[in-house]
Amino acid sequence: MSIAHPYLMFLGDAADQLAAKTANGVAKWRPEWCLGQLRFEGCQADIGLPDMTLEDAAAAGAKTLIVGVVNQGGYLPETWISTLDKALDLGMDIASGLHMRLSDLPGIAEKAERLGRQLYDARHPTRDFATGKGRRRSGKRLLTVGTDVSVGKMFTSLAIEKEMKARGMKADFRATGQTGIFIAGDGVSVDAVVADFISGATEWLSPDNDADHWDIIEGQGSLYHAAYAGVTLGLLHGSQPDVIVLCHEPTRPHMRGTPDIPMPDLQAVIDANIASGRLTNPDIRCIGVSVNTSALAEDEADRLLRDIEAKLGLPCVDAFRHGAARLVDALD
Amino acid sequence: MSIAHPYLMFLGDAADQLAAKTANGVAKWRPEWCLGQLRFEGCQADIGLPDMTLEDAAAAGAKTLIVGVVNQGGYLPETWISTLDKALDLGMDIASGLHMRLSDLPGIAEKAERLGRQLYDARHPTRDFATGKGRRRSGKRLLTVGTDVSVGKMFTSLAIEKEMKARGMKADFRATGQTGIFIAGDGVSVDAVVADFISGATEWLSPDNDADHWDIIEGQGSLYHAAYAGVTLGLLHGSQPDVIVLCHEPTRPHMRGTPDIPMPDLQAVIDANIASGRLTNPDIRCIGVSVNTSALAEDEADRLLRDIEAKLGLPCVDAFRHGAARLVDALD
Repeated sequence: MSIAHPYLMFLGDAADQLAAKTANGVAKWRPEWCLGQLRFEGCQADIGLPDMTLEDAAAAGAKTLIVGVVNQGGYLPETWISTLDKALDLGMDIASGLHMRLSDLPGIAEKAERLGRQLYDARHPTRDFATGKGRRRSGKRLLTVGTDVSVGKMFTSLAIEKEMKARGMKADFRATGQTGIFIAGDGVSVDAVVADFISGATEWLSPDNDADHWDIIEGQGSLYHAAYAGVTLGLLHGSQPDVIVLCHEPTRPHMRGTPDIPMPDLQAVIDANIASGRLTNPDIRCIGVSVNTSALAEDEADRLLRDIEAKLGLPCVDAFRHGAARLVDALD
Repeated sequence: MSIAHPYLMFLGDAADQLAAKTANGVAKWRPEWCLGQLRFEGCQADIGLPDMTLEDAAAAGAKTLIVGVVNQGGYLPETWISTLDKALDLGMDIASGLHMRLSDLPGIAEKAERLGRQLYDARHPTRDFATGKGRRRSGKRLLTVGTDVSVGKMFTSLAIEKEMKARGMKADFRATGQTGIFIAGDGVSVDAVVADFISGATEWLSPDNDADHWDIIEGQGSLYHAAYAGVTLGLLHGSQPDVIVLCHEPTRPHMRGTPDIPMPDLQAVIDANIASGRLTNPDIRCIGVSVNTSALAEDEADRLLRDIEAKLGLPCVDAFRHGAARLVDALD
């Protein structure tokens, strides 16, 4: 099951722009799939799409209502539930990035079943996966890896896919988190899979393909993160990447969420990923670095990128400022 | 919630001794907790305990019926369900190692609720865990790690706990799989935890303790297993072990379940665990090796153990044949 588009982006009564981060990512990377945004009175987010009612969107052909917003307080207000209910009546599927499952909302599962609509909980894998097999698959794979969590792995992956497609290469972004799933229309939240199936789910996500086809697989976590390294390693083994791109955010005082653990050296992160990745792809190599320099001034950012490039001997870009062309060049 | 003992071991109509492997492990390591075994006509397993009816066991003070057996065909026959139902009536809790949840059996959850009995599904973590924090905890920790799955990590851990207790040391076996959970009376099936919480669940399992107390943590999987390495890494990070013991089975042609992946070199497995383990415990070291030589003749086994010991420069024992004394000696 994949998520049908075009989408109507539901923002509800989001308290600020950050609460609509997921919806914003979808609107940025798949503008052609996003017909409009549905906002309640008092909504403090705006992702730059035309405001639409459910009826407008249905008339314009919207296939899925995307709940790409974090609500206040963690409970669902009645106005949200009645909106989802009405979207089903108007012919739309619903896809949600909430922690709460759509099927746990009163009346929603029954109505969807009765009307033949799909409910898609991006945070909760509903498929069953096999355990990983470690068999080498056809086609090529690129995995973004990180020094830490939240350093731009999804963004970098999407910038690489975009650059590859612009060059006429066969490429597919493979999503492993909720925002990525709305952008790809399918995928697996690997950090929500039962631990035994992390690599198996990743093998499912990136099956055999044409010899010249690239899967650009969205990385998660970091081998150096004390909470999430297990997810990262399973994803690395299941991806069996031919190449990795290291993603980094240069202003962290320590690993995010674990104040006792310092940020690792970039070369150490590359080495650890190469050493572990060899288990399922002996030819794995690192082709470049993508640094999120949004917290730095432009000249400071340029200096940092040059320094890292000189030190590691690999192309080093900020995919947001410069795009991913130099990373894709490095594949040759 | 921990599992109350003494236990009545339920074997049902197990097709052979292997189907009762879990029950057998419990009877071996906790004979003082096991009052008897309950077998149906035609049961082909015998774990060496007195045969008892439910009524006998209740009269003898059994607190929990342990379903430590794999049934034929994967569905639960009516005779099993009515036995579980009656155990509740007779005052027992139920603990199960089945894939199927006790609460999914018709009538069982309702009756347990009504009578105030506990249902414990050892395969399915029911607690919520926090994500790992990587904070150094007080007390000492030993983790068994493996070249592969099913190489004797639980057995070795229990042999070490037994040896430590015999010496008057403070030690607790910490269970991470279903058989271990029945033996410890509590624990977490880490491979069944949602991937984000592998290390967090392990941190919960092995909290702060006395400075001279040892947690002996049951390892799972292998950093060199393409399906399960994520579980292994999260368990390593969450355990933050001071020492590891490498477990090995010497007759495998390849990693179990992944025919494309060869068995790793023992030193490589030690090195990989030390390198990754340093993230949460910079002082981690390997103190010895435990080899399951059950497939070898005694002289062949002795030769192999001597060879590994000379090559790695670490004590190398078969914990089944020799106990764990030399491993515990190596802690000094």
